[in-house]
Amino acid sequence: MQDAVRVGVVGLGTVGSGAVRLLVESSEHIERHAGRPIVVARAVCRDVARDRGLPLSRDCISSDIRDIAGDPSISVAALLVGGLEPARSMMVALLESGKDVVTANKALLAEHGPELFDLARRRGRSIAFEAAVAGGIPIVAAISECLAANRIESIRGILNGTSNFILSRMEEDSADYGEVLALAQEKGFAEADPAMDVDGTDATQKLAILAHLAFGAWVPWGEIPRTGIEGIDLGLITCARELGYRIRLVAVAARTGDDAAPGPLALRVSPALVRLGTPLAETRGAYNAVSLVGDAVGRMFFHGLGAGQMPTASAVVADIIDTVVGRAAITFRTTGVLDVDSPAARIGGVETHERRFLRIPVVDRPGVLAEIAGILGQHGISIASFIQHEAAGNGDAAGAAVPLIIMTHHCGSNAMAQALAAIERSATVRGTGVCLPVLDDGQPASPGSPRA
Amino acid sequence: MQDAVRVGVVGLGTVGSGAVRLLVESSEHIERHAGRPIVVARAVCRDVARDRGLPLSRDCISSDIRDIAGDPSISVAALLVGGLEPARSMMVALLESGKDVVTANKALLAEHGPELFDLARRRGRSIAFEAAVAGGIPIVAAISECLAANRIESIRGILNGTSNFILSRMEEDSADYGEVLALAQEKGFAEADPAMDVDGTDATQKLAILAHLAFGAWVPWGEIPRTGIEGIDLGLITCARELGYRIRLVAVAARTGDDAAPGPLALRVSPALVRLGTPLAETRGAYNAVSLVGDAVGRMFFHGLGAGQMPTASAVVADIIDTVVGRAAITFRTTGVLDVDSPAARIGGVETHERRFLRIPVVDRPGVLAEIAGILGQHGISIASFIQHEAAGNGDAAGAAVPLIIMTHHCGSNAMAQALAAIERSATVRGTGVCLPVLDDGQPASPGSPRA
Repeated sequence: MQDAVRVGVVGLGTVGSGAVRLLVESSEHIERHAGRPIVVARAVCRDVARDRGLPLSRDCISSDIRDIAGDPSISVAALLVGGLEPARSMMVALLESGKDVVTANKALLAEHGPELFDLARRRGRSIAFEAAVAGGIPIVAAISECLAANRIESIRGILNGTSNFILSRMEEDSADYGEVLALAQEKGFAEADPAMDVDGTDATQKLAILAHLAFGAWVPWGEIPRTGIEGIDLGLITCARELGYRIRLVAVAARTGDDAAPGPLALRVSPALVRLGTPLAETRGAYNAVSLVGDAVGRMFFHGLGAGQMPTASAVVADIIDTVVGRAAITFRTTGVLDVDSPAARIGGVETHERRFLRIPVVDRPGVLAEIAGILGQHGISIASFIQHEAAGNGDAAGAAVPLIIMTHHCGSNAMAQALAAIERSATVRGTGVCLPVLDDGQPASPGSPRA
Repeated sequence: MQDAVRVGVVGLGTVGSGAVRLLVESSEHIERHAGRPIVVARAVCRDVARDRGLPLSRDCISSDIRDIAGDPSISVAALLVGGLEPARSMMVALLESGKDVVTANKALLAEHGPELFDLARRRGRSIAFEAAVAGGIPIVAAISECLAANRIESIRGILNGTSNFILSRMEEDSADYGEVLALAQEKGFAEADPAMDVDGTDATQKLAILAHLAFGAWVPWGEIPRTGIEGIDLGLITCARELGYRIRLVAVAARTGDDAAPGPLALRVSPALVRLGTPLAETRGAYNAVSLVGDAVGRMFFHGLGAGQMPTASAVVADIIDTVVGRAAITFRTTGVLDVDSPAARIGGVETHERRFLRIPVVDRPGVLAEIAGILGQHGISIASFIQHEAAGNGDAAGAAVPLIIMTHHCGSNAMAQALAAIERSATVRGTGVCLPVLDDGQPASPGSPRA
């Protein structure tokens, strides 16, 4: 039996406390997988006095990152604080003092990944970050190791547990966005400031990391088109359901073009309609899901808890074990995609062809549907189905605005943008419409292999 | 750039040919992940003359395993022949000549795993076998690496693509077992001799391997209770659907007891009812699925193509890359569960408590339901719902046998066995009944974490 490995934990928030608990309480089990004992030598946090009920001596807890960076007996550090600073400076200090680093901080990697990976490489250290994307789902390992023989064609993911919890509860409880958000905050489930969750930032940063691993090109997350769930009201959810769909915040990444003439990457985070019964639609509550297509493996689907203390700690500790046994260093060294020299991705400007779900607030009078359908038709867009309910309360009050719900057949994004602009100029339209993409092929056809 | 790694491929059947194609056609992509070129130096197969259309010089194909085992320039061998012999002797020859081995042969590992792992360990070699279970789904890596921080509590899997294809098509086409099996064979989808698929042997061998990885105890696959799908007829599928369920061949493994008094492992492969809309029920055609529960990560679900040429080749080549970069050696060395000294699992004798679906052929006359319900009640088993249709064609012909379908509440397996014996002794019963377990909790409740 080799000597124990001494680990430092930076940050004792939800994830940090979970990682400490798991390392201590499952130490025997972890030792069996690591081939040697792993001990928490020190934890660093802002509020040293606070009692977190952790199985860790108070002597081991302090507030100065140098207590870990400066301790040569500590070889691995888990950086489990969020945000950009002081997380970035801490990561730099840890790498420069020769620690291998494990982190769950997706914002830090999405913003400063290339420079941090480069620093680690120059220092002969590794950075492992399974916990940064989709919590307990081992999607980073899947893409960079298990599916390494595949050219990844596309990824679709539900990557933000808070948004998915809100959308799920709105539907299940027939509740408004505000009500459910308040409930989630009350339960400690959404952050006091949930802006980065509901506006799609968190999912976009995770998508940028996955796209980097899958496509080998660095993706500046801020350039990815992004729409959050703030505009999703109960009416939209109800109408989608009536048509056989659910609304989910879906992160999408796909290659375009072909080998001879590769196009830019098509990347997007937005609410989308997914058909009831398909895997993404059945991903509920705090669960995350990732569906991907590889040229050899075909369509794969992963589902699991994407956030929360112990699922995220599970990924952090798996990374610590990988680092201790030496797998993380190999992966970090051989996976060229994390190289600072990897080309920047070309993104944007991709015309997408898909079905769309429209809600247009129109005046409730005869001929309106014909007019809207006419405008769509002029732009080459045909209607698959539509719903128009009577105006609530005053069925025949001429002039009241009612929502006209339209599901289109496949159409191009440019044509749709032009049609929407024309529709909004129409005198029969009152206010702004909603246009959401429809993802129809979540469930793979059976049976067979994609490349026979 | 390091020198190329020379790989030998043993067996050019479906999987072997797929692995060669992937290694050659995706060589550039694979080199980027392995950090060096990987070339197919030699392939060995029985029928050298046959043209397989492979991108491989005929000079590289021969029929003697010694052409690989005896070539010191070859460091990694992919053993892609099925069955026990000559596969076992070939594996021994490869290990003894110092090759690291990658294999997709689940029968070989389930039967001879401990001795082969021991030989590899003594020779300082590794055996990687992601492709042996669930094809393209990286479930071996998930359990032995990605979820290494977890104590795995239970596993449920659809592990045999042929059985799942047959059950899916019987339902979709309202076709009989024999018809669909013939179709699957005609399409080259089921083996000429599909016995090991449809009688549950294949799924049981895969379950034994997963249980070994998850629970750290060697499981002799022949001791796992096993029922195949040969007894599933269209009537059962239709009745299950009427109650809101689908029939799937499900492999189950779970711990029993607790830490203080661990019980035996509960292991089983059998057709079971899974609720429509849950992940296992929505696993169709040739797809495989694995649902597992870890103490930290909670419930995880994986879905992908479990068989077929390229999905399996994807796993084989990922293992070759892992072997080339050195990750496989580390995993093989540190994962003590593959040790020959790992204890034999205690299995069997576990009383399971679950709902059951019964089909009992009874005489079509008044009072029969009351009698059967009475026998069940005497054994403490209560009925949740039942279906009894009129006898086809002769609605009131007294004495004709009709199926009585019963869904019970949770009950113990011992009580059920006794009740079934009593029911079959009844004068109102004509022939043998069917009793299938009902797996109700496939879809995790939302939201939250299992270990808050």
